[in-house]
Amino acid sequence: MKLYDLEVSGNCYKVRLFAALAGIELELIPVDFMAGEHKQDPVIAMNPLGQLPVLSDGATQLRDSQAILVYLARKYADDCWYPQSPEQQGEIMQWLSTAANEIQHGPGAARLVDKFGFELDKANAVATANSILPIIETQLSQHQWLALDQPTIADCAVMPYIGLSHEGGVSLDRYPNIQAWINRIKALPGFISMPAL
Amino acid sequence: MKLYDLEVSGNCYKVRLFAALAGIELELIPVDFMAGEHKQDPVIAMNPLGQLPVLSDGATQLRDSQAILVYLARKYADDCWYPQSPEQQGEIMQWLSTAANEIQHGPGAARLVDKFGFELDKANAVATANSILPIIETQLSQHQWLALDQPTIADCAVMPYIGLSHEGGVSLDRYPNIQAWINRIKALPGFISMPAL
Repeated sequence: MKLYDLEVSGNCYKVRLFAALAGIELELIPVDFMAGEHKQDPVIAMNPLGQLPVLSDGATQLRDSQAILVYLARKYADDCWYPQSPEQQGEIMQWLSTAANEIQHGPGAARLVDKFGFELDKANAVATANSILPIIETQLSQHQWLALDQPTIADCAVMPYIGLSHEGGVSLDRYPNIQAWINRIKALPGFISMPAL
Repeated sequence: MKLYDLEVSGNCYKVRLFAALAGIELELIPVDFMAGEHKQDPVIAMNPLGQLPVLSDGATQLRDSQAILVYLARKYADDCWYPQSPEQQGEIMQWLSTAANEIQHGPGAARLVDKFGFELDKANAVATANSILPIIETQLSQHQWLALDQPTIADCAVMPYIGLSHEGGVSLDRYPNIQAWINRIKALPGFISMPAL
């Protein structure tokens, strides 16, 4: 099972992190982003959006880190990471959408501007970060984990770009419960890190 | 089962549409957005993000239209709308993320600027629309439905803001396969529309 991967991508790291925590073996295929390899075959043929990561598992090819987390959890992991009940899946899905929406376009986008020079609206990205982080702080003041009473793929999807937010000029100083949650994730068996986390 | 609802919201319409197609009965609770009712109880207590829709079903309260689609499909609908296999769920999840990310921040955001006066980066929203719509056009030139060989919650999640894109100054003239797909959805038994669609 191959993961077309970029080491500094938080979206790629979501998948590497979950695979490590759940004991799923991935063959990492580094993609040279600066050379534009994500816009060339084989990546672009598997993902016309030209984004990383891409998972290739036999006949199955998947783009989007959240979709890959659902697939890996359903196919290869213990149910605890993405339990079966509609209520639990709904609860987790809320946070997968938050990862694709507010986290990607908040701290994720701010980091793209500061670290990689993307021409995005930095003020809007910081405003989005400043509106979602207090909500996550409140959630984590009442719960140990984001979605359920145990770590799930929701934590793997949401944590990376929050843990990297300092690279976009967004500080976590005001969010002690978020900091404690990141440390709980870092203490999980099998945890792996990424640069700057 | 109550849906806290705003008629002109494409995100609320995703849920109303899927419920109608799947024969799920919802009690619609209109929320006066202009009066700020989404920032007051009971909505803000159920969804601190202050966004609509919110679903309340007994002890279960869910925000985010994609999460609500997963919950309703798993709990109340025939499996065809969100089949059980990891491969099929991964395929559908890709498009739920696209709905929360590129569709929300592309045609969805452009419409928020033009129709509701939101202060967002219109040029960036149109650029996002112009980059995702050709990919969806290509997908629909090869497939009748977005994710599988049948209509799924992916179609319900992605179609609304594309069908409303003219309200954000984004034309579908160049995308005949997208237009045909919208018409296929409109022809499904139980289909309901929304203003401007």
